[in-house]
Amino acid sequence: VTGRWVIVAPNRAGRPQDFGAVGSGEPGEVCPFCEGNEGETTSEVLARREPSTSRNGRGWRVRVIPNKYPALHPDLHDPGPRGGFYESYAGGGVHDVIVESPRHVCRTTELTPQELQDVLECYRERLLDLRRDPRLVYGMVFKNVGAAAGASLEHAHSQLIALPIMPINIQDMLVGSQDRFVTSGQCVYCRILAEDRTAADRLVDETDRFIAICPFASRFPFETWLLPRAHASHYEDHGAEELAELAVLLRRVMERIDRVLGAPAYHYILHTAPLHDPPLPHFHWHLSIMPRTTGVAGFEWGSGFYINVVSPETAAEKLRTVRLPADSQLDVSRSAHKSAQATT
Amino acid sequence: VTGRWVIVAPNRAGRPQDFGAVGSGEPGEVCPFCEGNEGETTSEVLARREPSTSRNGRGWRVRVIPNKYPALHPDLHDPGPRGGFYESYAGGGVHDVIVESPRHVCRTTELTPQELQDVLECYRERLLDLRRDPRLVYGMVFKNVGAAAGASLEHAHSQLIALPIMPINIQDMLVGSQDRFVTSGQCVYCRILAEDRTAADRLVDETDRFIAICPFASRFPFETWLLPRAHASHYEDHGAEELAELAVLLRRVMERIDRVLGAPAYHYILHTAPLHDPPLPHFHWHLSIMPRTTGVAGFEWGSGFYINVVSPETAAEKLRTVRLPADSQLDVSRSAHKSAQATT
Repeated sequence: VTGRWVIVAPNRAGRPQDFGAVGSGEPGEVCPFCEGNEGETTSEVLARREPSTSRNGRGWRVRVIPNKYPALHPDLHDPGPRGGFYESYAGGGVHDVIVESPRHVCRTTELTPQELQDVLECYRERLLDLRRDPRLVYGMVFKNVGAAAGASLEHAHSQLIALPIMPINIQDMLVGSQDRFVTSGQCVYCRILAEDRTAADRLVDETDRFIAICPFASRFPFETWLLPRAHASHYEDHGAEELAELAVLLRRVMERIDRVLGAPAYHYILHTAPLHDPPLPHFHWHLSIMPRTTGVAGFEWGSGFYINVVSPETAAEKLRTVRLPADSQLDVSRSAHKSAQATT
Repeated sequence: VTGRWVIVAPNRAGRPQDFGAVGSGEPGEVCPFCEGNEGETTSEVLARREPSTSRNGRGWRVRVIPNKYPALHPDLHDPGPRGGFYESYAGGGVHDVIVESPRHVCRTTELTPQELQDVLECYRERLLDLRRDPRLVYGMVFKNVGAAAGASLEHAHSQLIALPIMPINIQDMLVGSQDRFVTSGQCVYCRILAEDRTAADRLVDETDRFIAICPFASRFPFETWLLPRAHASHYEDHGAEELAELAVLLRRVMERIDRVLGAPAYHYILHTAPLHDPPLPHFHWHLSIMPRTTGVAGFEWGSGFYINVVSPETAAEKLRTVRLPADSQLDVSRSAHKSAQATT
């Protein structure tokens, strides 16, 4: 009725859960994502490693591996017939896990600046890599932190699911922003940035090239977006230097969220343009951070509308004014300097 | 960008939470929904009561009261200007709480047959009442059970939020089912019922006039729909006898869910046609029950697609074949008989 696809993946019911009953990272349990346990995972498709270390061995900073319990079959060819009244077919696609640190840390704020920078670069590399497959239309990068956010393992990781069908939410954003572009001649996100930099009441933080805002009419308390200040539809078109700057801002925003909300469960989601689209004048990539301070209940599921008990203006003020620790890692210029040293 | 409205309601941040830190219905704490505590609530707008008991006093079975922390202002007149680039206005509407029993019970399966029947009749009465207000376009009835489902009080209750703007999910269902009707000449839900009664692999339970299925490509494990077997777009057009039969089926389906999933948190949502629409040939009302066995995570929020680890066919088989207790309350004919006695 609504055109929404559902991935039925019974194989994922058997995946390990290290929260709750099974124990939450207790000593003695083996975390498959920790350095030294590479044999417990699938074989890496990409990694950032120290020189002269071997694939699937120690010495990595960030590691990209196929999900052991993928939501989609890795085999994309021949989907078969789509059925009659009930449309269905064998769902192929890519489901990567990006392990963000060799150490057993959980939150973005616990990553080193270099690790976070490597993570953001791995997103780019994998998206560029997936562009080479004409059967995939969209690469969805996302991260769940904490059991309340649906994470099944606590060791810091994010995921990338590449799909042969355009996600309905991305389609809605593309159509909505195109409509706005046609009537106004302007990217609606560029307009949002201009409005919010002027009014400053939804502004959280910024660097030279990136900005963080609590967007107008956000669905969730303390929902925060990071966007490039100059128009760009594809995240993966940014260079390493820009992503290093983005890493600093992301780290700083996550530090603000952790301090104001007491290290909440959260998701972040990268909304970039479709893999094979040319640069789009109407769409502007953004990273949405969604702290899980409240559950989603019957009204939201039924209506598609949301009740937000914290206005974005209140949230932005709290995030903007919270005292950050004196920490050179949170400073763009110093961090860029350190990172330049680390890569020489 | 997507046309979604968000209700910003800071007043709701202060509402009581009887789960978790504040204590979960512990003796000594006053539950505002228990009989005898009517003075703790707003004044009732509707109730099912024993003869010669007084409004806002004891002696009720089901009580409808305005939400003390409403998501929308009860004052609907003069919404004011909608703003410029950022569209907003003062959101008016109705936010009722339906207290389902004078006893401190939590789950639908703990209600007496008469209480559940009264609840379903109160939904109808309130929807019919709200039809008289031309400024309201939709009445959304829903229920949250358990902290994981976003309930803030455990005493059995449901809610009705009536809105001056059509909910985006309802709009999507109306447009999608209309499209299907135009191309096929048939209500898509009637077709679903016909398909599922024939194949029987998604069938959970049925009575003479109602059916329960785990719908094809459901978003959530064990999601279950109750629908009238004969086409009907408006829930509130059903008579008392039919609602008594629906109450029996709902009770029986909830008993199946409680037994298979171990009394999970859940929502149910009544998807009925808009308040002022005439009977619609393409839309078919349905009650969606959504057990909260898994959280919704980054992929779902980002894509709008869902990963369901239990196929609806597997879920339906488990629900259909679970052993129900020998209980005359779960039997339609006996319950209808008892209810006829109770109302004489």
